[in-house]
Amino acid sequence: MVENIDPEEVLARFEELSVLEADFDDVELELIRKSDALNAPLWKKRAEVIAKIPHFWTLVFEQAPPELDSFILPSDAQIFAECFETLEVTRFEIDDPKGSPRSVSLKFGFGDNEYFEDKVLEKKFWFRKSRDWEGLVSEPVKINWKKGQDPTGGLTDAAIKLAEARKKANAASNKAKESELPEYKKLVAMIEESTEASPSFFAWFAFVSDYRWVSAEESEQAAKEDAERLEKLKRGEKVEEPEDEEDDATDYQETEVFPQGGEIATLIAEDLWPSAIKYYKQSHEQDGDDLSEIDVEDMDEDEDESGDEIDIRGLVGKGRTGSPPAKKQRKA
Amino acid sequence: MVENIDPEEVLARFEELSVLEADFDDVELELIRKSDALNAPLWKKRAEVIAKIPHFWTLVFEQAPPELDSFILPSDAQIFAECFETLEVTRFEIDDPKGSPRSVSLKFGFGDNEYFEDKVLEKKFWFRKSRDWEGLVSEPVKINWKKGQDPTGGLTDAAIKLAEARKKANAASNKAKESELPEYKKLVAMIEESTEASPSFFAWFAFVSDYRWVSAEESEQAAKEDAERLEKLKRGEKVEEPEDEEDDATDYQETEVFPQGGEIATLIAEDLWPSAIKYYKQSHEQDGDDLSEIDVEDMDEDEDESGDEIDIRGLVGKGRTGSPPAKKQRKA
Repeated sequence: MVENIDPEEVLARFEELSVLEADFDDVELELIRKSDALNAPLWKKRAEVIAKIPHFWTLVFEQAPPELDSFILPSDAQIFAECFETLEVTRFEIDDPKGSPRSVSLKFGFGDNEYFEDKVLEKKFWFRKSRDWEGLVSEPVKINWKKGQDPTGGLTDAAIKLAEARKKANAASNKAKESELPEYKKLVAMIEESTEASPSFFAWFAFVSDYRWVSAEESEQAAKEDAERLEKLKRGEKVEEPEDEEDDATDYQETEVFPQGGEIATLIAEDLWPSAIKYYKQSHEQDGDDLSEIDVEDMDEDEDESGDEIDIRGLVGKGRTGSPPAKKQRKA
Repeated sequence: MVENIDPEEVLARFEELSVLEADFDDVELELIRKSDALNAPLWKKRAEVIAKIPHFWTLVFEQAPPELDSFILPSDAQIFAECFETLEVTRFEIDDPKGSPRSVSLKFGFGDNEYFEDKVLEKKFWFRKSRDWEGLVSEPVKINWKKGQDPTGGLTDAAIKLAEARKKANAASNKAKESELPEYKKLVAMIEESTEASPSFFAWFAFVSDYRWVSAEESEQAAKEDAERLEKLKRGEKVEEPEDEEDDATDYQETEVFPQGGEIATLIAEDLWPSAIKYYKQSHEQDGDDLSEIDVEDMDEDEDESGDEIDIRGLVGKGRTGSPPAKKQRKA
């Protein structure tokens, strides 16, 4: 079993694997497109049925796996129970040759409520590349909070201000370091001062990236370089590994108000959204509901604005704990 | 916001959702078939490249997520490092109208070794249904251990004996309770007496089900009943919820030697297998490898049969801890 591994051999294998990886990636994109095309009419039908079911999405979110559930504070659950009405997930760049089928929009619809003015909060995630990273980036979404009702303590507003200052600086070709911006320093200070163990779920609407903001132009350039490298590899030509990008020594995660935002987006888009019916049914099964006895409590009672934290499960009459897990649950 | 929810209304919505769920399920099966068709030629090409890379699969398994990694004991890692050569994942019922595209075979290929006689260990998982469960079931795989080398302490052999006794009893239409079989009692006792916190990974080859064994006949019958119920729902006829099955008060999980076996199969088939190149590259990146310096240690040195536990990472010259995670890792 003596093995002599020639470094050139290993490099050649790495290159062969890289060409294959690009082929696998193409197949994955085709499957996302296929999945979207086949499921779209079903999602439309599902939305029509859901529209007749009060609290459908609130009940689905109650059943969310712990990775998401841990970010929904009792006060967030209260807001969801009172006014969260619709969810729509779309692959908004699926037919855009310059975009990516991995880009995804999550559109939350709300009824009139005491917390914010908005009827719709749409969070868009673009799948972008830099020289040494690829993933989802997003822009902070403005939430028009009613007075004294912002559960993020100003984090969403501060993130919006930084994003606007960044755009302005870039447009002016002002290549000053982002970390010199007053809006940057302000947000860093706010995050540092924040005493909450976990931010409100609504801070997720201010998520930017788990890396840093990557513009469409930068991403196109990186994709072009990737494609050229791949073509050379396929022709058997020598290629250089892409150079590491210049490190401007800015720790962009200092200003990220919701570091797990990309994972949360993926979890909602790829689990809660496609499996919503399963989660909704679970919310009944876990309560041991006899369908003939379903009883949703009168919501009026809870609108006394007492400010007490009220468990969403109580609000919509479903329990989660103490019940056996649903039996018919797919394992494959 | 007073809501009057009529139980009949809720039941009607549940039925509409059930019809939709069946449509979503059909789409999912079509996508599994499509994925298999598109990826098959790439998996073939990948196998050709991998054949030239020593320890490819061992390195991939080293990078496995914690849900799998926690089941690979140091002594298992030793066996993998010495002789694990090939892996092949196939959807063996994909074109079988009576089977399921979710059924999956995991075929492990090994070189000559001091532990067992087998060159191939193939573990097949059938996607089956009972009246109130669906998921993967499997039969224990016989491993021909060399003398004194069974890291499962006889668990795989005992599981095989129970499976054989069960088949015999069923063939004889001997409807005695399975828990009365001496092979059942023996296996329960062995599992109870086992002092290891976690069994050897090789016990996974003896996995049966996280529910209980479900035969092809039972599954076909359950699928037929499901289909009939669905047809009635589509015609708007009244349907009865399927009756709960008779509970024979046997806790089949008492004899399950690897309770997480189905999840592990899914993780290998749906993550390690499709993303093997990514994990292989990670094993180099995490070590901060300069490709010109790759150095795989001479395996001969470790074949002294001293019986010491040797960390697989040392064996194949890769480290996992203390290195930064790979940067270019997809987040979508």
